[in-house]
Amino acid sequence: VPKVSQDHLDARRQQILAGAQRCFAQHGYTGATVARLEQEIGLSRGAIFNYFPSKQELFLALAIEVNRRYGRLLLEGGVEAAIRAMAAEDPEWLGVVFEVHGKLRHDPDFVRRLDEASDAARPTLQDWFEAKQANGTFRDDVSGRDLGRFVTMVLNGLALRVVGEEETDVDATLKLLHDAVAPRQ
Amino acid sequence: VPKVSQDHLDARRQQILAGAQRCFAQHGYTGATVARLEQEIGLSRGAIFNYFPSKQELFLALAIEVNRRYGRLLLEGGVEAAIRAMAAEDPEWLGVVFEVHGKLRHDPDFVRRLDEASDAARPTLQDWFEAKQANGTFRDDVSGRDLGRFVTMVLNGLALRVVGEEETDVDATLKLLHDAVAPRQ
Repeated sequence: VPKVSQDHLDARRQQILAGAQRCFAQHGYTGATVARLEQEIGLSRGAIFNYFPSKQELFLALAIEVNRRYGRLLLEGGVEAAIRAMAAEDPEWLGVVFEVHGKLRHDPDFVRRLDEASDAARPTLQDWFEAKQANGTFRDDVSGRDLGRFVTMVLNGLALRVVGEEETDVDATLKLLHDAVAPRQ
Repeated sequence: VPKVSQDHLDARRQQILAGAQRCFAQHGYTGATVARLEQEIGLSRGAIFNYFPSKQELFLALAIEVNRRYGRLLLEGGVEAAIRAMAAEDPEWLGVVFEVHGKLRHDPDFVRRLDEASDAARPTLQDWFEAKQANGTFRDDVSGRDLGRFVTMVLNGLALRVVGEEETDVDATLKLLHDAVAPRQ
């Protein structure tokens, strides 16, 4: 048996996730059949389910990846980068995310594992908000936790507008959000 | 045939909507069978479907009613009343709202009729925001439309937190939202 490098495994995993995301966006969660997943990903079901034992696992991995990506965007590019990225998301893909969250919100295993992923990211994000409070970028008369929650609410509210294909003036949104979190003059 | 008063018809309609909302919240959209709807509403399927010809019509009427209620809350109690009402919503019921919005977002008839209801309410809401800009309650360096959209994003982001049963400090949220929309000092 030839040795398979970690890089190869990671690349294959990314190929599967990217293809699955396109497939979910195009056909919805229920419509993303195994045959369609195989076709969009370009791998056999055996290869796919070697990485992700079920469609739900595949979706969970994507949902966790979305959360991570927005965490990284905030940390690296700040609030503006995260808001601009959300405004540019594919409505079909975001629609599937909301649909499946709704569908699986009574599935204890799904909820627990998604919560664990959020919980793992939370201290880093909270540290980031608190550091920005300490250096005077953000107001400090509310907690860093509440600042983070507020930014998340605006991001998620924007996500819902994207799903509904409702127009949003991103610059106006950023201006209002900035003045919510900036230090009071 | 005895004449049935409009008041009676309205009361019956409200009874059906209230019972259906409880039933959807308890059993989810798919789980709200006709038998369960009959039991929770306290009327026969014949009586119910005399008012709403299908479960989807029943849900659409509820979804439109939610939008109207938040419009009225804003107009009568301002941003704070709407935010406090959202924070106090039943997670199960809100969860069903998001689930069905996701499920039916490719149903052209459902989307069109929900959009029509939103479109009908929009001028009144925009007038309200513009009047509050004119009297100095809200800033006027962004449009009333963009203020309305921002408040809606925070409301919807909060709704998602309620669905996920995530804790939110409502006072901190109101403080941040206030400073986003208040005139700059």
